Amino acid sequence: MTAGSVGIDVGGTFTKICLVARGGAVQRSVQIPTEPHREPAEFVRRITAVLGGWSFGSLGLGLAGGVDLREGALLFAPNLKPWIGFPFRRVFQRLLRVPVAAENDANAAVWGGYVVALGKRPRNVIGLTMGTGVGGGLILDGRLYRGTTSSAGEAGHQTLSARGPLCRCGKKGCLESYAGTLAIQRAARRFMRRPPRPLTPKSVADAAKAGDPGARRVWEEVGGWLGLGIANLCLVYDPEAVLLLGGVARAGSLLLDPVRRVLDAQPFRQPFKNLILRAPAGRDWGCVGAALLSREVR
Amino acid sequence: MTAGSVGIDVGGTFTKICLVARGGAVQRSVQIPTEPHREPAEFVRRITAVLGGWSFGSLGLGLAGGVDLREGALLFAPNLKPWIGFPFRRVFQRLLRVPVAAENDANAAVWGGYVVALGKRPRNVIGLTMGTGVGGGLILDGRLYRGTTSSAGEAGHQTLSARGPLCRCGKKGCLESYAGTLAIQRAARRFMRRPPRPLTPKSVADAAKAGDPGARRVWEEVGGWLGLGIANLCLVYDPEAVLLLGGVARAGSLLLDPVRRVLDAQPFRQPFKNLILRAPAGRDWGCVGAALLSREVR
Repeated sequence: MTAGSVGIDVGGTFTKICLVARGGAVQRSVQIPTEPHREPAEFVRRITAVLGGWSFGSLGLGLAGGVDLREGALLFAPNLKPWIGFPFRRVFQRLLRVPVAAENDANAAVWGGYVVALGKRPRNVIGLTMGTGVGGGLILDGRLYRGTTSSAGEAGHQTLSARGPLCRCGKKGCLESYAGTLAIQRAARRFMRRPPRPLTPKSVADAAKAGDPGARRVWEEVGGWLGLGIANLCLVYDPEAVLLLGGVARAGSLLLDPVRRVLDAQPFRQPFKNLILRAPAGRDWGCVGAALLSREVR
Repeated sequence: MTAGSVGIDVGGTFTKICLVARGGAVQRSVQIPTEPHREPAEFVRRITAVLGGWSFGSLGLGLAGGVDLREGALLFAPNLKPWIGFPFRRVFQRLLRVPVAAENDANAAVWGGYVVALGKRPRNVIGLTMGTGVGGGLILDGRLYRGTTSSAGEAGHQTLSARGPLCRCGKKGCLESYAGTLAIQRAARRFMRRPPRPLTPKSVADAAKAGDPGARRVWEEVGGWLGLGIANLCLVYDPEAVLLLGGVARAGSLLLDPVRRVLDAQPFRQPFKNLILRAPAGRDWGCVGAALLSREVR
């Protein structure tokens, strides 16, 4: 297949549609509101309208929830509940007459980072998707590992401190409650004299790069907790590489340096000695990964 | 192979040698001191002396550390340091002329529990070995998963509370520091009016079964923390079953009931809805698993 592929990242609020070249470069990108209160068939119509003039050989969907791969149907999906059970894969395949893949959105993003940033080389990789939510995906022996109920990889809801801050999920002290966007905003309000506006991971990263001591402290704290979470994962899973994706990960070395310090201080050295830690530049990993997965559909 | 197999569990202090029937029943059992300050070749001689009159078709070793499977050599081993690099598998094979397998001791124990207590049926299983140390092993797609550096499964050293009690490993708030033997002794001294003597997981379990409220509280606390640790693991691996092995796990429902309560309270229901949780009766899972692994050597 020499033509590009379409990758669609379906979140609870927005849906991003990208045309992705064979090597993973994003060539076109459109964002539309998801509107899950409306019929899924209507959503499909809006997508196909966008794709009208595009030329592509396959299409991949990253869906925010657990996915039945064969039907491309959501099995569970806190933010897309009304669409549970709708066979997206079958419907798109019939309408567009190209191979279609469907996958959990975090898995798709991790697959994209794995293929493009790591060249599929390591066999065992943990990926974390870091935004408002902190999700994840596992590559085991070169393939996406989906678990028994299609819900593997929820690394953002591991407890790091049983008496920690309340997480959006209702538990306390989850990794997400220390390293998600909301945690960064909370830390910025606490440590920065004049928190930037709008208060986003990017604006806090910009302030830190400009030398703001409070902003630097935010990333020290966030990176420290993220390091603990990554250490937990690596002790159990002993991967070759850890990939950090998503808006929060774009802070780069501001985030990676404190993570590395926590990993370097782990008493069990073995899993950490040669561990590759990457926060590859670029966005749209969900679209890129979904598109690349669709190229593997037979 | 109709004859039994020998399973040897080599710990830092003691080594247990068992004759294990085809189905996993222990038919004979001998314990000797390990004495890792003496030559490994001398240790091999002491083992072969024990095996003098035994009839068996294969032999498996569970070694406390990371293991090179081909040579049966320790790669790293905090409690067996002087023996790192000694090719146990090759040496036993030459001396005894039977197939020999070598494996990490926790992996061997988890394999034993997997085969005997679960009939190898689920494909994805997490096992925890609970004693002074809390270790673990992963079965992925029906096979032991060893990780990149042979150190996968160190679930006992995941951080559950960054400001928790000091663990033997030097970190704070590891699962082991809440659910290992030392934690149970510490909790018993704190919650029981008259802690039993000797103060062991078994004596604290016996007191709880006899109705001692302090002892019951010990198991509530320990089980609560263990539940948090198991929840963390299941959110990432989404297994079909969790196996609890080792002395601490023999507390049975005293431990399992509070674990179950924590799992039932998890906001993400999917990985927990049909999760099998077992603490199979029996000891010597390390020997049983090593013996059974040796039956698969070609």
